[in-house]
Amino acid sequence: MSDAARADVEMKGGGYYSLATRGAKEVIDRATPLVLQAIDRMKRSSRPFVMSDMGCADGGTSLDLVRTCIDHLAPREFTIVYTDQPRNDFNALFRIVYGGTGLPSYLVGRDWVRVLVSATSFYRQVLPSTTVDLAFSATAMQWMSAKPVNVTGAVHSVFATGAEHEAFAAQARTDWHDILRHRTAELVSGGRFVSVTFGIDERGRFLGNTGGVSMHETFEAIWEELADEGVITPAELLDMTLPQYYRTVDEFRAPFDDGSVPKLALEDVFTRVVECPFAAAYTEHHDAARFAREYVPTLRSWTEGTFRDALSERRSPEERAAIIDEYYGRYERRVREAPEGHGMSYVHVYLVARRA
Amino acid sequence: MSDAARADVEMKGGGYYSLATRGAKEVIDRATPLVLQAIDRMKRSSRPFVMSDMGCADGGTSLDLVRTCIDHLAPREFTIVYTDQPRNDFNALFRIVYGGTGLPSYLVGRDWVRVLVSATSFYRQVLPSTTVDLAFSATAMQWMSAKPVNVTGAVHSVFATGAEHEAFAAQARTDWHDILRHRTAELVSGGRFVSVTFGIDERGRFLGNTGGVSMHETFEAIWEELADEGVITPAELLDMTLPQYYRTVDEFRAPFDDGSVPKLALEDVFTRVVECPFAAAYTEHHDAARFAREYVPTLRSWTEGTFRDALSERRSPEERAAIIDEYYGRYERRVREAPEGHGMSYVHVYLVARRA
Repeated sequence: MSDAARADVEMKGGGYYSLATRGAKEVIDRATPLVLQAIDRMKRSSRPFVMSDMGCADGGTSLDLVRTCIDHLAPREFTIVYTDQPRNDFNALFRIVYGGTGLPSYLVGRDWVRVLVSATSFYRQVLPSTTVDLAFSATAMQWMSAKPVNVTGAVHSVFATGAEHEAFAAQARTDWHDILRHRTAELVSGGRFVSVTFGIDERGRFLGNTGGVSMHETFEAIWEELADEGVITPAELLDMTLPQYYRTVDEFRAPFDDGSVPKLALEDVFTRVVECPFAAAYTEHHDAARFAREYVPTLRSWTEGTFRDALSERRSPEERAAIIDEYYGRYERRVREAPEGHGMSYVHVYLVARRA
Repeated sequence: MSDAARADVEMKGGGYYSLATRGAKEVIDRATPLVLQAIDRMKRSSRPFVMSDMGCADGGTSLDLVRTCIDHLAPREFTIVYTDQPRNDFNALFRIVYGGTGLPSYLVGRDWVRVLVSATSFYRQVLPSTTVDLAFSATAMQWMSAKPVNVTGAVHSVFATGAEHEAFAAQARTDWHDILRHRTAELVSGGRFVSVTFGIDERGRFLGNTGGVSMHETFEAIWEELADEGVITPAELLDMTLPQYYRTVDEFRAPFDDGSVPKLALEDVFTRVVECPFAAAYTEHHDAARFAREYVPTLRSWTEGTFRDALSERRSPEERAAIIDEYYGRYERRVREAPEGHGMSYVHVYLVARRA
């Protein structure tokens, strides 16, 4: 992100992640009716309701969803448990959720709400057995428990072939089964798991690859450019593989269909595309520089860490930072110089499962 | 803290708070038998056990206590909920608890343990009703919900007189009642609240005031020195009042004795002094400079924020930082030049209450 863009984001007074991912918020907002339907299908009770938000980042994107759930169940006591990995910025989350930024806090005037946070991965059991009513996760479970292999010629497994693809697919099967197994343990009888996760839809579309310029191919092309110019080494070129997998609907369905998660029943599964908000705005304002400046931070927010980790530890932190800045600077320039077709539209698989 | 001392702390690889407060850890370690006794008095059950640690800071001081409780109850599922105010450094807590520092994590090899964190004050209900087995707090509940008035001629209410003292005592009564009321709501029937809180013992002793040089009087004397020299203004001199109150045993007992918390029964209450570990070490090594360098950070760790807040907002952050550095530099110099009698021995009131 350029300093100008960074200042722009900071001036808005919120968490960088949330503002750079307004599309992710839109995805959650549009999933809200699905979540409310899941709640309405549960048996009514007066004991405290427990919702988890797994892979919450700074909590900004789900603030409105959580508030809506609280009010939908009011005056029932409500606990929201935010979870993410230990390296997440939980201080930023607390600032947002407790009203320390410009964003309104749902805690104001709702003294029956408890906020809890966990840094335990969703690849483990996060919460005590049989205590969760609604397990929710948006735009998170495409991250794998580990990177099985490097992908040759691409930064993402969605372009992997042969043995490389099979290694990813196998790991993704195990990961998804582990996720479902731990949610089975956490959920109360009749509880629901709502997963809104990146995937591949029936037409083969996936994140940033819905027609127009492919985001993932651009990621690779610029990284290869840096390798061709000798800025990065061949090892660094290869090592840049996101530990992610986009599952198809069939892959999401598999453990339900083959009986390997017998206590979870699939209630609903469908795909949906949410248009890139920055590309949509560009069709209104026609300002290529603004589009590039606003759009690239959204890419950077979730890829920067992996690019940095791909760089050799023999480089100084300053050197690595300079390469990363150069990398996103080039992406921004590409968008500025030829904006048409760029964009990161979201392709999600939505899924609701019921705990027996 | 001097840069040298800071570097020394950082080199040890842990949280600043925990290392600067090894005395606070000793207090908790010595309270461990009391906590285990409280657990043993509870009815056995197989449902997940829930413990809270209110005012946890970075979690480092209670790591061993929590591990001991986990193992005492093993293989029963165990949830530990760390709580502190939103401005606490929760990222540091997660680094410590998840093994991101040199300190060993109790999560390794104990997959039945869940870690949760809350930024809700203990002056509110932190956890859902009737869900907590063991509510624990060490060296935290002397902090008040608000500062009622400034104390003239002292930085702490323990030296307040007349109307100033009465304002503090009244606020402390309300605060303690609120703390007990919210713990009543959170605890399960038969659950215990173990409070290890600064107070005044039967011989009139309190923190840093157990014979020898009085820590609180030194705080005030150096602050007055800065006022006399015109470094700080008379308003800044007055405004430095810690929002704290040291209750006597009678004050801790009052709500139990007068029936205002009918569902909580007092099981145990006593006082204990834990000697200042830095002063104790000095009697072995006789190195005054080392004593001063190691000791003053422990004072700074819990007073610096209040001193900084007492300084006018018209001063630049740099100017405020310089005054604060000067202040603790003078304290360090006093200890270095005349070490005898300095020290911050801990005086706590220990209390166990049972939820009906």
